[in-house]
Amino acid sequence: MGLFKADGVVYKPAEEVDVGPDSHAIYLQANVKAPRLAGLLLKICLWFMELRVLGTFIVYILKRNNLIYKLVSNAEMVESPLYVPLHSFEVQVAINCLPTSSETVSSDWQSSFRHWTITDYCNAYSSGETTPSMVAESIISAIKHSSAGPSDMKFFIDSNSKDILIHAAESTSRYQRGKPLSALDGVPVAVKDEIDCNPYLTTGGTKWLHKVRHCKADACCVNRLRSCGAIVIGKTNMHELGVGTSGINPHYGVTRNPYDAGKISGGSSGGSAAVVAAGLCPVALGVDGGGSVRMPAALCGVVGFKPTFGRIPHSGVLPLNWTVGMVGILAGTIEDAFIVYAAIINGQLSSDGRPILQPKVYFPLLKSTNRISGIRLARSAEWFSDCRADVRICCSNALDQLCKNYDWQKVEVTVPDIEAMRLAHYVTIASECTTSLNSYLEKVDRSELGCDARLAFRVYSSMSAKEYLQAQKFRNRQMQIHKEVFKRADVIVTPTTGITAYSIPNDALKTGELDYIKGAALVRFQIAGNFLGLPAITIPVGYDETGMPIGLQFIGRPWSEPTLIHLACAMQALRISEYRKPQVYYDILRNDDV
Amino acid sequence: MGLFKADGVVYKPAEEVDVGPDSHAIYLQANVKAPRLAGLLLKICLWFMELRVLGTFIVYILKRNNLIYKLVSNAEMVESPLYVPLHSFEVQVAINCLPTSSETVSSDWQSSFRHWTITDYCNAYSSGETTPSMVAESIISAIKHSSAGPSDMKFFIDSNSKDILIHAAESTSRYQRGKPLSALDGVPVAVKDEIDCNPYLTTGGTKWLHKVRHCKADACCVNRLRSCGAIVIGKTNMHELGVGTSGINPHYGVTRNPYDAGKISGGSSGGSAAVVAAGLCPVALGVDGGGSVRMPAALCGVVGFKPTFGRIPHSGVLPLNWTVGMVGILAGTIEDAFIVYAAIINGQLSSDGRPILQPKVYFPLLKSTNRISGIRLARSAEWFSDCRADVRICCSNALDQLCKNYDWQKVEVTVPDIEAMRLAHYVTIASECTTSLNSYLEKVDRSELGCDARLAFRVYSSMSAKEYLQAQKFRNRQMQIHKEVFKRADVIVTPTTGITAYSIPNDALKTGELDYIKGAALVRFQIAGNFLGLPAITIPVGYDETGMPIGLQFIGRPWSEPTLIHLACAMQALRISEYRKPQVYYDILRNDDV
Repeated sequence: MGLFKADGVVYKPAEEVDVGPDSHAIYLQANVKAPRLAGLLLKICLWFMELRVLGTFIVYILKRNNLIYKLVSNAEMVESPLYVPLHSFEVQVAINCLPTSSETVSSDWQSSFRHWTITDYCNAYSSGETTPSMVAESIISAIKHSSAGPSDMKFFIDSNSKDILIHAAESTSRYQRGKPLSALDGVPVAVKDEIDCNPYLTTGGTKWLHKVRHCKADACCVNRLRSCGAIVIGKTNMHELGVGTSGINPHYGVTRNPYDAGKISGGSSGGSAAVVAAGLCPVALGVDGGGSVRMPAALCGVVGFKPTFGRIPHSGVLPLNWTVGMVGILAGTIEDAFIVYAAIINGQLSSDGRPILQPKVYFPLLKSTNRISGIRLARSAEWFSDCRADVRICCSNALDQLCKNYDWQKVEVTVPDIEAMRLAHYVTIASECTTSLNSYLEKVDRSELGCDARLAFRVYSSMSAKEYLQAQKFRNRQMQIHKEVFKRADVIVTPTTGITAYSIPNDALKTGELDYIKGAALVRFQIAGNFLGLPAITIPVGYDETGMPIGLQFIGRPWSEPTLIHLACAMQALRISEYRKPQVYYDILRNDDV
Repeated sequence: MGLFKADGVVYKPAEEVDVGPDSHAIYLQANVKAPRLAGLLLKICLWFMELRVLGTFIVYILKRNNLIYKLVSNAEMVESPLYVPLHSFEVQVAINCLPTSSETVSSDWQSSFRHWTITDYCNAYSSGETTPSMVAESIISAIKHSSAGPSDMKFFIDSNSKDILIHAAESTSRYQRGKPLSALDGVPVAVKDEIDCNPYLTTGGTKWLHKVRHCKADACCVNRLRSCGAIVIGKTNMHELGVGTSGINPHYGVTRNPYDAGKISGGSSGGSAAVVAAGLCPVALGVDGGGSVRMPAALCGVVGFKPTFGRIPHSGVLPLNWTVGMVGILAGTIEDAFIVYAAIINGQLSSDGRPILQPKVYFPLLKSTNRISGIRLARSAEWFSDCRADVRICCSNALDQLCKNYDWQKVEVTVPDIEAMRLAHYVTIASECTTSLNSYLEKVDRSELGCDARLAFRVYSSMSAKEYLQAQKFRNRQMQIHKEVFKRADVIVTPTTGITAYSIPNDALKTGELDYIKGAALVRFQIAGNFLGLPAITIPVGYDETGMPIGLQFIGRPWSEPTLIHLACAMQALRISEYRKPQVYYDILRNDDV
């Protein structure tokens, strides 16, 4: 009946799907049929695709070739749409279950590189070894250094020295009076430029959004960090409007990877990952709508943590979508990610109006020797292996050692329809982003957008109501299937990305690039975290031959953050690989010359 | 950025909207710019609109002229999408609050026409005055009579005499043993052909749907009525797939109005309204996705009741949409609607496995003399008056008398954006219907559909994801505005329809008709019940000059069914108009010759 009639696949009802290791479900590798576009080629293609009739036809062909019609739009399934991946709260194992990582790490780390942690900052301030004001000076100088010369790292879209110094002085004074607000007092944090944060504009990586949408107040998550005394050191660079995975921004430049300034940092929260890796701050905030926190974290060798959908208040974050994105945390260590997570979700204030995040509350947890026994870690063999060989070997090895060391069980499962889920997620985020930005986009000249974002929006705006609803039907089905998987295991383990950070292509600097093939390899393991709202965490477990970091991901049940953090701490404590110091690194706390 | 760029209205944030009587909100009358289409004209138009390019262009123009772009697709509003009108359960005033209508009615009704009630059936069976088997014979004969001759009423799509007789014999035997299952034992009920019910097919008013979708078991609501002993007498006629409001079905004929066989019964649950009006059964089930229970109820002079979204289990109902439709009840009296409602929502069974719906449980309620005091009834003046003069005068008079008699308060309010809500609802139901039926529609030849349904689907399938999401944003906003209205009043009162039943147009018999102007007049007061999931009830309050019934509607807060039933009982007890006997009427219980 529709304009386009195409044969769709017929999905089994969710309850009939076998998620066991011998399932007959076929693993479909992403077979992306779209040329890489950048530079002049991208401009030419954009010109064609913005033609009304021909452009519509090209988009139709693109969607058809990339299986959207077959796997989503015209698929048959019995499930109703599930619009929002909300999970009823399930009581979790007590939160004070972190393994003995702190001690282990502290002793081990003497011998090799490690990031300064929140605890390090807190101790240094408390002992008077340094002050927040001194640290602020050091950071301002480091930021200046990092953005100078030919290897301009493009970490930030904006950083306001005056604002940093004012807050640092206040923090310094609190320490002098012996009354720090919390363990986070004076700790530098960076915030992705998708999150409202005074006195900065919120550009979303564009040159225009802040002109039509004004940042009125701090986002809730920023407000909570600030009320703990944390100091915002700037708004980090990002892929324009979060529409890509490379972090190449034609307006503010490419955020370079601290492990190799010739390589990308990933996206869209690339700036937040890079500043943590480069030592400018122990933690940063990002937003994860399709792996946008976990991907750059893995590519830059830091921890990336995305809690359960709805766990972190979303107010004050650019509404680029409503049902898949949420605030995530990038940090040098699991403990730091956990402290910031606790600060953000903790809306309670003590009797004197200060947030309940005192060192005494959180640090004992990290020293606890409790250990959860009998954790079952699921691996879906074909999916796990759908990555570059070195990534697979590194991640397999990490998983094996984890199970062996802690006597945990590795369970083989089959998580079906991964590629279809990626497409259904794409349809969803495209539809929501188009709608959300519609009233803003109409107020600007389209030439203000980067070519890659423009082309992305051309495809985004092509989604029909039927496609959107089919994707929500698929969400319902996939949610039920994951529930089955989580009956067999407590956590799903995957590589975080299928590839590591790749070289920055010169032709993309001015136009951005569209590389759906590399994009698919980057997001392959991310989607359940967004489309199904599951919590997920990535932790560095090694390096490839060129020295670029590799991440391992744990995907948990809804509300299973404590288990995830426990697992990640255990993994971190194992230290199956030496941590290597990034090529671009600033030793802020030692205040070395930079 | 999109293919179509058009200026949309800018809506105030919901919290800034004034819902008081002096609000500056402008009441926008429906200004439907679409010619009435039927017969050859409809066929020609269909041919053009099914052309790919030209058809797409015509749909674009139609949507533009009918303000969908301006009021929905390109409108600006700050609210996020609200996908499903689910309301958290609010504890209501105790349910045994029905006024003294039963006694009043019983004495008054001796002098004029009244429908036989469930109580009448129950008493007649219990006293041995008649038996379910005798009643069944009488009904079978009446159905035969009603569908013979030139004035074939087209009440049913199918009615199975053998099935009726079997169930009637079982019921008769239960009464003979002195063990009826409940007050509903042996009571005839009719079921809209959109609800699964063995041994019937579920056609949805089509000639093909049952070939590709099989009815496997009774729908939950049917199952519950049957477990109370109710006898299903057939599957009632309906507008094909519920896509229209006239009840003109080109495959199964027009359901004629028992008050005037030359007039429509309305739709889409026209058959269910007409069989109750014609006395074939005291109650019938319908489905209300856009007023489809309440409109035909008003047009046929019976009670129509649509509870809060989610109140009645939806399993076994054709999934024509997911977020606006639900089962509703058509009945001769409020008490009967309430008994069936109680039977359907009551999933509990007694210790011996029988449903808890004994006469002793429910009938005392109806005799209660409790009365709620201080009810505030809201009227939005311009909206209330946007109907034919006779309808307005009749409904105003009813409302005034109600307030005066029971000392209740009439509150003037402004319910803004009624027309925009109608369009947003249209976008929603169109999108969901297209998606839901997609896999079925692809399996049939489109010529199997009526021309009107085909044309409707052509427009339905044109909705973009952005349009759907904009409609859900609008839903969120409108929900908040209604919450404000319900701070000022307990119930919103409107006419049920803007016009009364109109003459059956001969040119529409074979093709169906598309008359969006009459359609808009019929649904004008319905949409909050569906789009916002609010409970609503219509009750007959008079007749127009040609003797066609007029209905008054109460729209309640979420979960306020007890209040609504209380109000409707009070209205019924007032009897501000004599009840007139329909021209086509079968006195089943007296078993008169028909």
